Amino acid sequence: MTEENGRKLSIICSKGTLDMAYPGLVLANAALMEGIDVNIFFTFWGLDMVNKKTMNYLKVSPLGNPSMHMPNGMGIPNLVGMLPGMTDMTTTMMKKEIEKLDFPPVDEFLEMIHDAGGKLYGCRMAMDMMHLEKEDLCEEVDEVIGAMEFMEISEGGNIIFI
Amino acid sequence: MTEENGRKLSIICSKGTLDMAYPGLVLANAALMEGIDVNIFFTFWGLDMVNKKTMNYLKVSPLGNPSMHMPNGMGIPNLVGMLPGMTDMTTTMMKKEIEKLDFPPVDEFLEMIHDAGGKLYGCRMAMDMMHLEKEDLCEEVDEVIGAMEFMEISEGGNIIFI
Amino acid sequence: MTEENGRKLSIICSKGTLDMAYPGLVLANAALMEGIDVNIFFTFWGLDMVNKKTMNYLKVSPLGNPSMHMPNGMGIPNLVGMLPGMTDMTTTMMKKEIEKLDFPPVDEFLEMIHDAGGKLYGCRMAMDMMHLEKEDLCEEVDEVIGAMEFMEISEGGNIIFI
Repeated sequence: MTEENGRKLSIICSKGTLDMAYPGLVLANAALMEGIDVNIFFTFWGLDMVNKKTMNYLKVSPLGNPSMHMPNGMGIPNLVGMLPGMTDMTTTMMKKEIEKLDFPPVDEFLEMIHDAGGKLYGCRMAMDMMHLEKEDLCEEVDEVIGAMEFMEISEGGNIIFI
Repeated sequence: MTEENGRKLSIICSKGTLDMAYPGLVLANAALMEGIDVNIFFTFWGLDMVNKKTMNYLKVSPLGNPSMHMPNGMGIPNLVGMLPGMTDMTTTMMKKEIEKLDFPPVDEFLEMIHDAGGKLYGCRMAMDMMHLEKEDLCEEVDEVIGAMEFMEISEGGNIIFI
Repeated sequence: MTEENGRKLSIICSKGTLDMAYPGLVLANAALMEGIDVNIFFTFWGLDMVNKKTMNYLKVSPLGNPSMHMPNGMGIPNLVGMLPGMTDMTTTMMKKEIEKLDFPPVDEFLEMIHDAGGKLYGCRMAMDMMHLEKEDLCEEVDEVIGAMEFMEISEGGNIIFI
């Protein structure tokens, strides 16, 4: 989109909830549109963002999250948040809001980022821990690498841990 | 306080809990006292930190947070953390500790940071998602901007995601 | 291990759960092996990682964490995650996986990082808040410092907030 400006941003995605997946995707996208090189390293729960089985089913839980509001601005008491179906309800609500803002679902967003030149990496250690193979991840993931390789790739730029 | 030293720190505040609000405020304040330029970008749940209705009512939940201790050093079992009133109790406990250390409440802390030259920004996308207008935010928020503008503002400095 | 390359990485550890302790330790270790200077600043719940009483008993909770899977790939419903013993079960599961990958427990990992030249710092403010003294922390912690001193130490390198 814009010309490259020599700047680099490396994002470590370590969370697998819907509300912590989008900040990484939005920042990556914004950086690419500014001509900044982007690397994303998916580790721990962040692998859920690129795991074909889970990437489009990320959830946001109201439990233990005092920031979660009902549409009326009231917090959700833990005793209510615990009820079956509440996680699904809050997830559906957030997905609708994301859609209204014209942001794509996770798989399409990653494709968009990848097409714009963003590099996606799976963390070897976390994949071993979760018994995941390269084939379990979406095809936009360029490579599975270790933390040392990630440190090399991120040299000379900003690193953000989400 | 100190002279400017050309260094820059941009903090992305994405959490709305009391225990994740203070680290950002404390770091921003420390950086300003060192003569570092500070930008804070409030996004997702972090908007609760600058939302006039919520900023002084941030909570900390014991639920699903195994690090939360009782004063006797014991963890809080989830079955107990779930009881009505436990979130309020842990919140009150932490607020007292913060006060004892002479740290101001969130609104005054933000005023202090702003007066010292820190710039505060609301994230347009997150505000749209949560149906918030500029008027809903405290007056210390300088501007509502998008992620691309934030990437420009943060150029040449450190970026921290909280 | 490798020669120093003039690069610097400062990691702020603010979480006390097992799943958010290891990313910091793994990154610190990888950076040191790449010849990068490493500083770790333990604040808020992150103090649990260097508190002698808690460091080897960090837990991971399934509650309010929709990313947490059962071995069969199914999520853990909040009503089940709330049952006594579920936090212990998920913690034991993760500890086993970490061990299988030949990663040491937290105390040994910190010793390894310290021996390789990594500097460990306790955050004075958070220690005051939690009524901790230097003696409560493991001996690998080099010093207890304030946020301003940490800002000075981190100058000219990357800063990551976990």
